[in-house]
Amino acid sequence: MAAQRSEAALRDERSQFHPFTSINDMKADGPMMIESGSGVRIRDIHGKEYLDGMAGLWCCNLGYGRKEITDAITQQSEKLSFFHTFNNMGIDVVGECAEELLKRAPVPMSKIFFGTSGSDANETQLKIIWVYNNLRGKPEKKKIISRWNAYHGSSVATASLTGLPGMHKLFDLPKGPILHVSAPYYYRNAPEGMSERDFSRHLAKELEDTIEREGADTIAAFFAEAVMGAGGLIPPPEGYFDEIVPILKKNDILLVADEVVSGYGRLGTYWGAQSYGFEPDLITSAKGVTSGYFPMSAVFVSPKVWDVLDAGAGEIGVFGHGYTYSGHPVGAAAALAALKLIDDLEVVKNVADVGPYMKQALHDRLGQHAHVGDIRGKGLMLGIELVKDRGTKEAFPMQDRTGRKVFKAAAERGLITRMLGDTLVFAPPLVMTRADADELVDKFALAVEDVVGN
Amino acid sequence: MAAQRSEAALRDERSQFHPFTSINDMKADGPMMIESGSGVRIRDIHGKEYLDGMAGLWCCNLGYGRKEITDAITQQSEKLSFFHTFNNMGIDVVGECAEELLKRAPVPMSKIFFGTSGSDANETQLKIIWVYNNLRGKPEKKKIISRWNAYHGSSVATASLTGLPGMHKLFDLPKGPILHVSAPYYYRNAPEGMSERDFSRHLAKELEDTIEREGADTIAAFFAEAVMGAGGLIPPPEGYFDEIVPILKKNDILLVADEVVSGYGRLGTYWGAQSYGFEPDLITSAKGVTSGYFPMSAVFVSPKVWDVLDAGAGEIGVFGHGYTYSGHPVGAAAALAALKLIDDLEVVKNVADVGPYMKQALHDRLGQHAHVGDIRGKGLMLGIELVKDRGTKEAFPMQDRTGRKVFKAAAERGLITRMLGDTLVFAPPLVMTRADADELVDKFALAVEDVVGN
Repeated sequence: MAAQRSEAALRDERSQFHPFTSINDMKADGPMMIESGSGVRIRDIHGKEYLDGMAGLWCCNLGYGRKEITDAITQQSEKLSFFHTFNNMGIDVVGECAEELLKRAPVPMSKIFFGTSGSDANETQLKIIWVYNNLRGKPEKKKIISRWNAYHGSSVATASLTGLPGMHKLFDLPKGPILHVSAPYYYRNAPEGMSERDFSRHLAKELEDTIEREGADTIAAFFAEAVMGAGGLIPPPEGYFDEIVPILKKNDILLVADEVVSGYGRLGTYWGAQSYGFEPDLITSAKGVTSGYFPMSAVFVSPKVWDVLDAGAGEIGVFGHGYTYSGHPVGAAAALAALKLIDDLEVVKNVADVGPYMKQALHDRLGQHAHVGDIRGKGLMLGIELVKDRGTKEAFPMQDRTGRKVFKAAAERGLITRMLGDTLVFAPPLVMTRADADELVDKFALAVEDVVGN
Repeated sequence: MAAQRSEAALRDERSQFHPFTSINDMKADGPMMIESGSGVRIRDIHGKEYLDGMAGLWCCNLGYGRKEITDAITQQSEKLSFFHTFNNMGIDVVGECAEELLKRAPVPMSKIFFGTSGSDANETQLKIIWVYNNLRGKPEKKKIISRWNAYHGSSVATASLTGLPGMHKLFDLPKGPILHVSAPYYYRNAPEGMSERDFSRHLAKELEDTIEREGADTIAAFFAEAVMGAGGLIPPPEGYFDEIVPILKKNDILLVADEVVSGYGRLGTYWGAQSYGFEPDLITSAKGVTSGYFPMSAVFVSPKVWDVLDAGAGEIGVFGHGYTYSGHPVGAAAALAALKLIDDLEVVKNVADVGPYMKQALHDRLGQHAHVGDIRGKGLMLGIELVKDRGTKEAFPMQDRTGRKVFKAAAERGLITRMLGDTLVFAPPLVMTRADADELVDKFALAVEDVVGN
């Protein structure tokens, strides 16, 4: 990429402060300029085509160029390009969107609070949780338990919830009443020889000990992704939520399911919670709700929480929280179109078929590879951890940047993956076919071989 | 509104958790359902038309139904409905948008960091500021000074920057290293008989004392809106920024201009900073950048700050901050269309004409009214503070909710205003004509008279 940079690349590099990018990498390589997209494929400004194994950023679940969503956006933008929902204002399409979302909730839910991103939605969760316990006369019950390797956002409070040291140190985080317990990372964190189920019990014990140490009366909520995403693509070990949930219930701790990545079908069930059989008190969703076509988040509030807010309405007065684009009419129209497509195209069923098929194909093709330590995940959310030594699980030296090399080799071969250290991850559009999955696995395996050999 | 609620209103009320709304008001009145918009006017589901005196929520600056923006959205959505800009990824239209923004900056700026809302942009500012001082070897220089009555967002950290008790108490805010100094609220806060200029000196002294008390080595930045918006529509007293800025410079404190409302022409200059002659180190912008058609924010980073990040690139590694929709291609396309319209329609020039005209019309019509305490603001950002007693400035009893009654009376007469307590505010589309301003002032004056008499 570095050789001859296009005018567009030079302009981009000169003008934009890129998120989650190394300034030095940008200087060395310049940006990879993407120009168009259709179905599961994108194209760069040189006309090179890529199979997008990441659906943009875990979001473009219905693929690119879906006319139904763009048409909905256009029509709503023509009709009412924006209005707000503060101070008793309402918009027909926003109410309809909220109702359709509630119909699809995994457990009965009372209300939807809108925003534009997973970060802002988790900010909303924190504020709801703190009000909830203030109204219940439990002003000390405010701490939040999150987990190492979690990803819950990038704003100050949600990056604090996030359990990634690389997102903490330079920014003086975590800030606020936030505790982290261990990641449910069986491959790396389980003591030698421990079964998955025993590892789940082990983590449940740690959680219980943490609650006891801090005092249950100080802990308000536990945040969890069903399968951890940006923290390394980490599915829970067997029985994890079965072990965790009763402890939360016993201690009157709310369970917040961060379904920003897992919601709307990614794991082969409509919600991640359904894949693991747990019932959240609050749900954070974003990304897939509009398939990335329009920034939107939707927080689901259960009767358990809403009823407390409702009973405290007099004390609350005006609920002093919200974003200009909480309930953007064009976002609501995009979401309604996306929700309809998820149903009409039987997307969840497709994931339940293609996901396991792709995982098996990865196992068949790379399961015995000397540098493939772990293949993990669920549905169309899969990760492959590369290691120097398969037997000892010894990692490649960090300065080798093996994951990044594989990312580049895959791009050369026309495939977009994502590196989380040396774990390469896939979260492709949920409409991907078995043939697409075959192509993905083949290109990926060749890219791995390009970098670390056969 | 309460009498016969439409199906749409009932559905909305049942399903959506409305931002900045009282649950009890919603039960009593239901939502006011808006359906369509064109130019400076919106229409509700019953076909009633309103002159939108608030441009949605200080954002729809170019008015509703602008075909150029919707067309840009449609075309970009068809071409590339989403892609991200993490990890060296770039998108032509996003780089172009960043470049066009930099061209319009009030002082030379190095880079644009994108997001979707003013809240997320101010979160970005906080993180940039903390990294900046870490890289400069000043790990103790981290506190932020904000002002009472400021509005800087609704997320945990930005609601903490915000200086409104109604946004703090229930949520246990402010949290974090944030200090508030007095609002530059001449009408309410200036000691009897003090001139505006002296009040500015008085506030500068308070700032200086605060810095001395805390220690300049502990203070990183000062956040300010040019004219305070949601905190009561408060323009700075004469010479305010002239007094403040040298103190910040002397103490090595960054000046962050929150131009979410004031940016892109609202005060009759392209930027609020230009109305008051100060030079920010960081600018937060949102709203007007797309005229509300698509959620977008843009942080401007000056060379002073960027050069430190650039020099520290090795230490930073991957800059661990960003949002999925940082640099959404469709948002960039919407912004490019909006920026072009701001130029082509000579919007800033229009505001410089219609703004003072409307302010004069408010003075002419209501300047002597017994219950009009203050008429203030700049450009098309104007506020009218109602009082029980004009002579003593005594406020109406809070439980009277006079401002809310005037809001309702104005709506009856086909005008949207906004109540901030008993201050009614206007931030209409910047394309409003003098005739629209006449209509606005006339309807508003009648609404005031409906509620508090002649």
